[in-house]
Amino acid sequence: MLSFNQLLEHVNTAMAALDLNRQPDRLYAPIRYALSLGGKRLRPTLLLMAYNMYRDDTERVMPTALGIETFHNFTLLHDDVMDRADVRRGKPTVHKLWGDNTAILAGDNMLVMAFRMMQQADDAHLRQVMDIFSATAVEIDEGQQMDMDFETRMDVAEEEYIEMIRLKTSVLLAAALKIGAVQAGATAADTEALYDFGICLGLAFQLQDDLLDVYGDYATFGKKIGGDILCNKKTFMLINALARADKAQQQVLGQWLAATDYVAEEKIAAVTHIYDMLGIRELAAKRINAYFDKAVAALDAVSLPDERKAPLKELACALLQRRS
Amino acid sequence: MLSFNQLLEHVNTAMAALDLNRQPDRLYAPIRYALSLGGKRLRPTLLLMAYNMYRDDTERVMPTALGIETFHNFTLLHDDVMDRADVRRGKPTVHKLWGDNTAILAGDNMLVMAFRMMQQADDAHLRQVMDIFSATAVEIDEGQQMDMDFETRMDVAEEEYIEMIRLKTSVLLAAALKIGAVQAGATAADTEALYDFGICLGLAFQLQDDLLDVYGDYATFGKKIGGDILCNKKTFMLINALARADKAQQQVLGQWLAATDYVAEEKIAAVTHIYDMLGIRELAAKRINAYFDKAVAALDAVSLPDERKAPLKELACALLQRRS
Repeated sequence: MLSFNQLLEHVNTAMAALDLNRQPDRLYAPIRYALSLGGKRLRPTLLLMAYNMYRDDTERVMPTALGIETFHNFTLLHDDVMDRADVRRGKPTVHKLWGDNTAILAGDNMLVMAFRMMQQADDAHLRQVMDIFSATAVEIDEGQQMDMDFETRMDVAEEEYIEMIRLKTSVLLAAALKIGAVQAGATAADTEALYDFGICLGLAFQLQDDLLDVYGDYATFGKKIGGDILCNKKTFMLINALARADKAQQQVLGQWLAATDYVAEEKIAAVTHIYDMLGIRELAAKRINAYFDKAVAALDAVSLPDERKAPLKELACALLQRRS
Repeated sequence: MLSFNQLLEHVNTAMAALDLNRQPDRLYAPIRYALSLGGKRLRPTLLLMAYNMYRDDTERVMPTALGIETFHNFTLLHDDVMDRADVRRGKPTVHKLWGDNTAILAGDNMLVMAFRMMQQADDAHLRQVMDIFSATAVEIDEGQQMDMDFETRMDVAEEEYIEMIRLKTSVLLAAALKIGAVQAGATAADTEALYDFGICLGLAFQLQDDLLDVYGDYATFGKKIGGDILCNKKTFMLINALARADKAQQQVLGQWLAATDYVAEEKIAAVTHIYDMLGIRELAAKRINAYFDKAVAALDAVSLPDERKAPLKELACALLQRRS
């Protein structure tokens, strides 16, 4: 069995070896750029990890791992166009460099390329792999639309938010694990358990992201603190604050959400103060713990000896910054 | 065997029966709208026609026919965003009604939906169908980028133009025929011959479109005459005029291409006059005939009795406005 880092290295090598030198170059240059920006490569590595729990010949499923990563990068590329984002992984976004039209078209091509990579699954698993992958792609698209819909709504319920992040974030982690396990010939019970593990891990990870945006520190979080607060993002934190605030707190929150001219630090401090008073940090931490526990329980249900499951459990702990 | 119109009716019935009532509605409303605008439904009907040459149970391959049509409508939707087109089939475009972001996302979803429909091919043909379809999707994307690149170029060669329309228009007609034939269990020689038929038919059809933009009449063409001339589109007509013009004609053409303030009718008349002098109409007609003849020869090579091939031959004649 290989470690997370060993499998990640295999993924990086295979990504770098992709032949993307087709014509017209104005279409493939942005695709090469988008796929060279790096990132955690978490999803393809998860796929290989799930496969590697059962079998050693991980190179056999590398095309599908690259398909998952190419798909993920397609979603980032189109999301950046929709969000008018200027920067991705510290570099200018594709639409900033090549314009919106080429960004749309390059994304479309990456989506098709992802399907072509998934289609390299062997005959015995082709249909199942394609079904999981394409159903997941539809769900992620639906999650992105929900996310956009939430921007203009003030009445987003926590359940709706959880459903949105399940679709937008969790299902791809879960599908990566499931596609890996399916290709290894795992039982239906095992593949479902791994899928559930991925869903719960994704939910915990996203809620942690919401929490760290308020209470993290820049050095470990890697992003500026308070970004969600400044753009009024309907996170787990804000949704619960709006639901729990008394009249006075509602009014203060409402004023900050409507404000157009303010000092960033003051808005962050004021909103954080309300979160403090309402115990939103503890609420989020509790939910993260609950999802982590559910993830661990799902992994426990996989019918393999503990040592085969250890790398996934360690990864879950590392992602959620836990010791055990 | 069923006629073109009978198969078209089956396609229309199946399209109307698609269940597109998923959530979020803001994503599926534009998809329902885009798929309800109609159009010729030429591509799915071609797929059924190719299948029907060999077998009678055409309903078996209907999901793949709908996949081809859904894919085609995805390309129109994203092309309309890129071209800032306000109208499609006499109705406002999706991005005009719902905004660019939802148009991008709805298109992405339709692309994935198209793959999901193609994945309904039976086990024996699944891989081949998916390979043809996804390779074609990549080519169409490349053709669209070439088309965009041509907008800012004055030195487009005829061969480049033919390659662009092959990718942007012909390969999907050809793939529809091939996917139909593959699922019917046709020989490799037959499926390739049908593919070639589709390529040549598509090229002839596009060149005829270029010709009718200049020399057609509004009643039969269904579009305003001179649209390509007004937007300086690098059509077969303009490319050949630029290549054949003498110095004086070059200068006149150049002035009209650079003009920003002019009377539309005057520009159309002046450019058409140059085409007249250079014999561009006859040149285009000759090329259309040559591609038509190649299409017929490809169809002749299909190893079936003539009566099985008659509907496709009639369709080719009808599309190219010929008597035989």
